[in-house]
Amino acid sequence: MTRFSFGEEASLPDTTDPVALTQMLIREPSVSPDTGAAQALLAAVLEQMGFKVWHLAFGEGKEKTFNFFARRGDKGPHICFAGHTDVVPPGKEELWTHPPYAAHIADGVLYGRGACDMKGGIAAFVAAAARMGEGGPGSVSLLITGDEEGRATYGTQKVLEWMAQEGHIPDYCVVGEPTNPLAIGDMIKNGRRGSLNAHIVVEGVQGHVAYPHRADNPVHRLLALLGELTARPLDEGSEWFEASSLQVTSMDVGNTATNVIPAKAEARLNIRFNNLHTGAELARWITTVCQKHAPQSHADIHISGESFLTPPGAETRALISAIRQVTGRDPKQDTGGGTSDARFIARYCPAVEFGLVGASIHQVDEHTSVQDLETLTQIYHIFLKEVLA
Amino acid sequence: MTRFSFGEEASLPDTTDPVALTQMLIREPSVSPDTGAAQALLAAVLEQMGFKVWHLAFGEGKEKTFNFFARRGDKGPHICFAGHTDVVPPGKEELWTHPPYAAHIADGVLYGRGACDMKGGIAAFVAAAARMGEGGPGSVSLLITGDEEGRATYGTQKVLEWMAQEGHIPDYCVVGEPTNPLAIGDMIKNGRRGSLNAHIVVEGVQGHVAYPHRADNPVHRLLALLGELTARPLDEGSEWFEASSLQVTSMDVGNTATNVIPAKAEARLNIRFNNLHTGAELARWITTVCQKHAPQSHADIHISGESFLTPPGAETRALISAIRQVTGRDPKQDTGGGTSDARFIARYCPAVEFGLVGASIHQVDEHTSVQDLETLTQIYHIFLKEVLA
Ligand SMILES: [Zn+2]
Ligand SMILES: [Zn+2]
Repeated sequence: MTRFSFGEEASLPDTTDPVALTQMLIREPSVSPDTGAAQALLAAVLEQMGFKVWHLAFGEGKEKTFNFFARRGDKGPHICFAGHTDVVPPGKEELWTHPPYAAHIADGVLYGRGACDMKGGIAAFVAAAARMGEGGPGSVSLLITGDEEGRATYGTQKVLEWMAQEGHIPDYCVVGEPTNPLAIGDMIKNGRRGSLNAHIVVEGVQGHVAYPHRADNPVHRLLALLGELTARPLDEGSEWFEASSLQVTSMDVGNTATNVIPAKAEARLNIRFNNLHTGAELARWITTVCQKHAPQSHADIHISGESFLTPPGAETRALISAIRQVTGRDPKQDTGGGTSDARFIARYCPAVEFGLVGASIHQVDEHTSVQDLETLTQIYHIFLKEVLA
Repeated sequence: MTRFSFGEEASLPDTTDPVALTQMLIREPSVSPDTGAAQALLAAVLEQMGFKVWHLAFGEGKEKTFNFFARRGDKGPHICFAGHTDVVPPGKEELWTHPPYAAHIADGVLYGRGACDMKGGIAAFVAAAARMGEGGPGSVSLLITGDEEGRATYGTQKVLEWMAQEGHIPDYCVVGEPTNPLAIGDMIKNGRRGSLNAHIVVEGVQGHVAYPHRADNPVHRLLALLGELTARPLDEGSEWFEASSLQVTSMDVGNTATNVIPAKAEARLNIRFNNLHTGAELARWITTVCQKHAPQSHADIHISGESFLTPPGAETRALISAIRQVTGRDPKQDTGGGTSDARFIARYCPAVEFGLVGASIHQVDEHTSVQDLETLTQIYHIFLKEVLA
């Protein structure tokens, strides 16, 4: 890792200005997992602000992932901000109105890869911590990973293991993902559904369609088992979650001979499940249904995340109150959508997600309003003052 | 077409000897549809025997198909033999114990492509007709096509249209396909199931698995419609037929993104149906079920043959009696297995199939026992004497 240092006082950005910090981070390209330089830059800023930084790289070779943990203060309460410095690739740069790493501001809008997902969110939290000043009550930390958009194997999970060993598990964590669909203040994510993928392969006995009794059609067995798996709703939803959903995403046989019963058929499915299920229970159910209809079948099941839920407590109420004070909006607590690293953090402590407006993430011309950066900084600042008091 | 003529008396085979005739036909390779020379040879033999021959080529260019109709006598009753001179390709010739076009005899077995399917069957009928001699009662004809193993578009169907126009529709037809599973005398085919192929394409709306309500999963619609199509038996079979059978032969989506609901899903199915159904009725049913579960779907349906049945009459009883006299066996009247050109002939007159033993058809080392050629000749001969009397 490149150790970054500010040679002259003049090059140090104003750490209370989230716009300058966001521009600094966007101008250091960091497509997963090449985030060493962006993290060094961020760590240098935090060290200037009185944070102690632990650089935590995990994985070898192409899987090597840069992460760091930074903490200011050693007392409780301990509030952590989790974020990622990695971004998705910009795609065709010529399609961008403003270059993806230039951080141009036009008409009050800041453009660039990572503007809202989530260099802008990180910058807002850093600026809020700067406005808190050193030597206050409790402690503030940042869990920064360089591989949230990628496989996430050597990122947040590994840092959390280290934090647990070293006694750095916080009392509460805010993950800075862009949770607001349209306007800042719209939505907090206080949970996420879990996700399970299954790849089912059914073996049969090939034969001629004119003699089906001499064959064993794996397509019919696959139809029967998928019919059972898709027949009933998994649940009706729960207090904080919409209903779990199973989607068959592919079925493949590849048989072009119209008079031949094929030897093999396969399918892929995904389940997004709420807190009424566990991945292990759903995996057992899938395996049982497969075996019932197709003893000669194999289901390769991968649980990419369990569901999590952070029921509202004092810290979440403080965050909602801060959002109301600054924006006048009453944020919805929601558990829909995709997954984030919050699923790993929630195993250790209560965690919610709240950040910028996510409408442009992963797209050409990703952007955030400059005003939103200041608004989010004020929300984080009021929240920190309240919960650390 | 090459007009074939026997230059010297010595080269004319003994037309009462089915073995010599079979060897002659095998030694003239005739993979579909290149059967001009083999048919010229056969026609020359029949002309020598007093048959009048009409050469009937249909189709243009690569589709050009050689066929002929030959008839001896113009009175009733009129018995026709239908056969094909075309053969399937030999595959890797080095895998054959005896070269595919050499017509070697070893240990009483005659080897070669077409030995049993169906140059041997043609030879047996020609030999039976030769043994009948010229000038007897009624008339005997042969409907010979050069494209039964191929697309069959410009073969038997076109010849039948010509025969209808010219007043040559017979009273009864024997198709010389190798109907016996193990030993000559085992089985007559007195009907065949129909065959229908459907290619179903369901259009949906692509989306992310985390937001299924914003997508329309075509895989689930396809599962529902195939579930209904495969749920109930089509029938329980009928007096002469086993139950109709629907086999889904392929389902294809080709989506490798595990978090994406695909835009399109397709499937292929085949139905082998008995005389309780028609192709048109089944096509309507498939279309209705598709529309019910997936209004944005299209079913491309091709009926490659309707079912047919020739209930036992005087001629079939005469054939069975001849089989019993020569072999001591009581042939089963069966309607199972694949399709043959008999499905076209049965639209014009009663038709059954009876020929050699079919165990080696379409394989390396296709063969027939020499004894079977003589046995089949005797059966056809006794049958002709009985029905023409
Ligand atoms: Zn993100
Ligand atoms: Zn054949």
